[in-house]
Amino acid sequence: MIRRFAIPVMLGALAVGACSTPPPAPAMNAPDDIAAVNALREKFVTTFNAGDATAVGSLYTTDAIAAQNHQPTDTGRDAIVASTTGLFSQFTVKMELMADETMTMGDFAYDRGRFTFALTPKTAGMPAPPVDQGRYLVLLRKDTDGQWRVSRDISNSSVPMPMPPAPEKGKN
Amino acid sequence: MIRRFAIPVMLGALAVGACSTPPPAPAMNAPDDIAAVNALREKFVTTFNAGDATAVGSLYTTDAIAAQNHQPTDTGRDAIVASTTGLFSQFTVKMELMADETMTMGDFAYDRGRFTFALTPKTAGMPAPPVDQGRYLVLLRKDTDGQWRVSRDISNSSVPMPMPPAPEKGKN
Repeated sequence: MIRRFAIPVMLGALAVGACSTPPPAPAMNAPDDIAAVNALREKFVTTFNAGDATAVGSLYTTDAIAAQNHQPTDTGRDAIVASTTGLFSQFTVKMELMADETMTMGDFAYDRGRFTFALTPKTAGMPAPPVDQGRYLVLLRKDTDGQWRVSRDISNSSVPMPMPPAPEKGKN
Repeated sequence: MIRRFAIPVMLGALAVGACSTPPPAPAMNAPDDIAAVNALREKFVTTFNAGDATAVGSLYTTDAIAAQNHQPTDTGRDAIVASTTGLFSQFTVKMELMADETMTMGDFAYDRGRFTFALTPKTAGMPAPPVDQGRYLVLLRKDTDGQWRVSRDISNSSVPMPMPPAPEKGKN
C-alpha cells in the first residue's frame, strides 16, 4: 500500500513545494491595516495638539524623514522630536487632518489629504501667525513591532505665498 | 486501483488549486521599472525646461492630483496642463531634480528627492522671483499603456518663508 501511494503523494508534495516558492502578494487595503492607519492619523492630531513632542516622535519610524514647509529636512526620529520640541516651546498648536485617500499594500501604505494648522504664541503680546492650510502626503510602514508608523512626511500650503516687502521708494 | 489513488490525487489537485489562487507578489525595484522611473524624471525636467505644458501633462496619469506649494490643488491632467500653461506664459523655467529614493512595487512606485526651481519672467523689466529649492514626493503608476506616469505630486520649499511686510509705523 505504501508504494502504491508514493507517486501521487509526492506529486502533491511537489505542488505544495512549488506553491511555497513565490511569496504571496501583499494584502491590499486590508481592513485591519486601514483601521490602524486611521487610528495613527488620529493619534497624530491628538499628540500634536497636546504639545507632546516625544509622543509625536513615537508615531514616526526611527529612520523617518520629515520635510516641513519652509524648514530644513528632519532626518530620523530624533531630529523630528527636536524640531517639534522647538515648535511646541513657542506655540500651542491646533491641527486638523482630513484624509482624502489611504492605500495599504502589505507593510507599506500611503495617506494623502488636507490639513489646517493654527498656532497660538506662548509669549504674551506676540502676534499669531496666519492660519495655514494645505495638503499632506505621508508614506507609512508596518514597523518591526507590528505598529504602523510614518516613514516619510511632506506637506505644503494652499495659501498664496506672502509677497516679500517691496523695496522702499527713494532708497535706491 | 482508481479508488486507492483517489484521495492522494485529489489532495494534489487541491494543493495545485490553492497554489494558483493568490496572485504572485509584485516585483520590488525591478531594474526595468527603476530605469523607466528614472527616464520619466528626466523627461519631466526636459519638458518643464522646454516650456511644453502639453508634454508635461502627458507625464501625468489622466486622474493625477498635483499640489504645488502655495497654489490650489490641480485635480486631473487637464487642470495640471492649464496651470502649467499659465506658469509658462509668464516665466521661463529652469528646474533641476535630484532623486534621493526610488521604490517600485509592481505597478506602483514612489520617487522622493530635492529640486531647484528658477523662474525668469518673460515680461521685460519684471523682477525675477527668488530661486526656490525644496523637497518633492511623487507617487507613480504603470499606466494601462505600460508607461509609468506620475499620479500624485507634492513638493514644498526648504527656503524660509518670507515675512509679510510689517505694518508701517504711525499708520495705526
